[in-house]
Amino acid sequence: MSKSVNIPKGTRDFLPLEMKRRNYIFTTIRNVFEQYGFEAIETPAMENLSTLMGKYGEEGDKLLFKILNSGDFLAKVDFSERNLYKWTSMLCEKGLRYDLTVPFARFVVQHRNEITLPFKRYQIQPVWRADRPQKGRYREFYQCDVDVIGSKSMLNEVELIQIEDDIFTRLGIEVAIKLNNRKILAGIAEYMGVVDKIIDITVAIDKLDKIGLENVKNELKIKGISDEAIAKLQPIFDLIGTNQEKLNQLNNILSHYPIALEGIREVQEIFDYLSHIQLNNSVELDLTLARGLNYYTASIIEVKAQKHSIGSLSGGGRYDDLTGIFGLPDIPGVGISFGADRIYDVLNEMDAFPPLVQTGIKALFINFGEKEAKYILPIISELRLAELSVMLYPDAIKIGRQFTYANNQQIPYVVIAGEEEIKNHCLQVKNMETGEQQTLKPSDLIALFNA
Amino acid sequence: MSKSVNIPKGTRDFLPLEMKRRNYIFTTIRNVFEQYGFEAIETPAMENLSTLMGKYGEEGDKLLFKILNSGDFLAKVDFSERNLYKWTSMLCEKGLRYDLTVPFARFVVQHRNEITLPFKRYQIQPVWRADRPQKGRYREFYQCDVDVIGSKSMLNEVELIQIEDDIFTRLGIEVAIKLNNRKILAGIAEYMGVVDKIIDITVAIDKLDKIGLENVKNELKIKGISDEAIAKLQPIFDLIGTNQEKLNQLNNILSHYPIALEGIREVQEIFDYLSHIQLNNSVELDLTLARGLNYYTASIIEVKAQKHSIGSLSGGGRYDDLTGIFGLPDIPGVGISFGADRIYDVLNEMDAFPPLVQTGIKALFINFGEKEAKYILPIISELRLAELSVMLYPDAIKIGRQFTYANNQQIPYVVIAGEEEIKNHCLQVKNMETGEQQTLKPSDLIALFNA
Repeated sequence: MSKSVNIPKGTRDFLPLEMKRRNYIFTTIRNVFEQYGFEAIETPAMENLSTLMGKYGEEGDKLLFKILNSGDFLAKVDFSERNLYKWTSMLCEKGLRYDLTVPFARFVVQHRNEITLPFKRYQIQPVWRADRPQKGRYREFYQCDVDVIGSKSMLNEVELIQIEDDIFTRLGIEVAIKLNNRKILAGIAEYMGVVDKIIDITVAIDKLDKIGLENVKNELKIKGISDEAIAKLQPIFDLIGTNQEKLNQLNNILSHYPIALEGIREVQEIFDYLSHIQLNNSVELDLTLARGLNYYTASIIEVKAQKHSIGSLSGGGRYDDLTGIFGLPDIPGVGISFGADRIYDVLNEMDAFPPLVQTGIKALFINFGEKEAKYILPIISELRLAELSVMLYPDAIKIGRQFTYANNQQIPYVVIAGEEEIKNHCLQVKNMETGEQQTLKPSDLIALFNA
Repeated sequence: MSKSVNIPKGTRDFLPLEMKRRNYIFTTIRNVFEQYGFEAIETPAMENLSTLMGKYGEEGDKLLFKILNSGDFLAKVDFSERNLYKWTSMLCEKGLRYDLTVPFARFVVQHRNEITLPFKRYQIQPVWRADRPQKGRYREFYQCDVDVIGSKSMLNEVELIQIEDDIFTRLGIEVAIKLNNRKILAGIAEYMGVVDKIIDITVAIDKLDKIGLENVKNELKIKGISDEAIAKLQPIFDLIGTNQEKLNQLNNILSHYPIALEGIREVQEIFDYLSHIQLNNSVELDLTLARGLNYYTASIIEVKAQKHSIGSLSGGGRYDDLTGIFGLPDIPGVGISFGADRIYDVLNEMDAFPPLVQTGIKALFINFGEKEAKYILPIISELRLAELSVMLYPDAIKIGRQFTYANNQQIPYVVIAGEEEIKNHCLQVKNMETGEQQTLKPSDLIALFNA
């Protein structure tokens, strides 16, 4: 019972209570997705490595879990050169999915003749990353993605923001919904005179929350951006006022950069629409929001808990050419993803899960032996036909231990049928909360348990 | 758009309609499991290879998908010997789960202090096998397992048979529930005088349905069992009559073999209990039922569709020492598993899925442009607060194409709000089935859509 009875690091078992809590989160998210007209799809856990490689940057390639070819995998191995990259490609053709976005892009291209655009899909499945495991970061975790593809309208962004607002309202977590636009960031890079450094800039800005402005500036410097250019960033971070006031100031600063103006116009349109809707959470223009993934091309969205410093609970953005990597260009899309694990941690910390501890079993019938069991079995069948959840304890062990089981499982009623009850065609029913005990006919149970 | 846009053979994407149908199956199964007091758990997709290897026979070991170690996996490789088995163990420490039973055994041992016995758990998750893909056989497929551990009572078998009956009744599939007991098979092996060949005998008998009696006999002969011994099998296969009559005959034939008598007594007890319950499907003693997996020690159960020759839809049995392999002996258990893919195929063939085609979207609001969208957005928000599922088409494209979308998605109502409607604070609502069109106030919509 030592070494082998363990699971790979960074993975988890979920026990019944955790499952109920996780399912509460998934069900809340799923219900909102479906209410907004999104439909579920699923893709396989394994994808061809050709689908996955090169989509998440060099670092991402390393974090892919690769599956050893079946059969005589050595047959394809060239022993002449000790090269990790070459060996991987000889030993493995498949990998576990790293996120839901790239498989979705592959799905859209592969099934383009089976879907109607705009295609509103959601997908709730686990993903795997060979990251160094640490608190709150796992090697297997669920993503809950919702995307619209085939539409360029900013109304999609509006709908996704409503979904964010709706889900976190239902979960009882107060959040700030942050909005930015990659085109504005591109305009800023132009304004700084470092167009070719746009990725370095977004990567650095993305860390602002974690490492602070001075360190971001240092990182930019290391990337070869001049002090002069970096100084131009300052007034942009210093914008103050309402979203509208910030947009106006930005419009002035970046007025010579068409790409920036396009981004500003898109953000403006989203805020205009939002002004016609009542939301429970704030939506803020946040120019420091960059999001690392480089397939985003316009809107970017991120949601953080107001009262918890746990990082983002959800985020996403618009990608105008995701399926292009698979040879199908010009399919625009926009989507967001919810991190179930972080949401779980926040709800846990807040102690904000609804009461979900019960098994759902309404009554435990005590087992006194074969004769009594035969009296009880048809009664239980009747109750189950009435959609009630009841059970007979399987073993005729000491009655005290059966009561303990009912207690542990928080079963509200215990039913006793011994010789006397069988003779009189009745049952003793004990309310485990009040301790009250009454003698009832089998036909009375449905009403009692439904009460 | 050629080679890379594909998924590994034996795996599948699920489109929205398939997802709805699959979820119908999963939800039906899950609801019954929960009604009978079983609780969900989940285990990780990956297990340590030390947990998986050697549990499914030599063939099973080969069918495990193994995951290449992360990082510099070559560091551990000894190049001196070209040996597939050694290389695998040097290259891989983890594998994808092959079934839900072995991970569950590992789970029970690992979490033995966190669970209460009898532990009634269910688990619905995918498993992976590097089998040769063919029609109806996939490399990734879902299993739906339900097990009770920590109880030796035959009432558990009775409950599992009720679950089989209940689930297939709800799904509308008429089935035959077949029952046997490994102890009877062991007694038969003793009676034949070939105790050491019990595994060969069960493996051969297991194929009876597929290859016929003559071929089973041939296989037994090849395994070195004498004609004389094989002849002793004949009267056992020839038993006729009701379950009770068969049990009586068997009792006579095997009266000198205590292990057989124990098995007969267990089956007898199950049938005695079942005589007190009304089931919708037949339960039959089937002595030719063997089930290949060698961890079963007593009851074995298998369910087949009455009108479809598709193989078993569900099956399982009792294992009196599953956790022993992980160092925790004497935890008895019994469980069954449902094959969602085969159930899907049967329902599909029967055309017996309930109507699930709709998106759930009740009304599509036509998009005429920004001004109209701003009129519609708050109306839609109100409807969503009332739990209604509605959407605004995201793009102001030709109205005909928006109607086509509503048709394709089987959305029952289309709502139109142009200049005139905005002026009069009203909406045009078209019933897509009847073609009827009416002018309504926004506040009338909730009643209409809930009707």
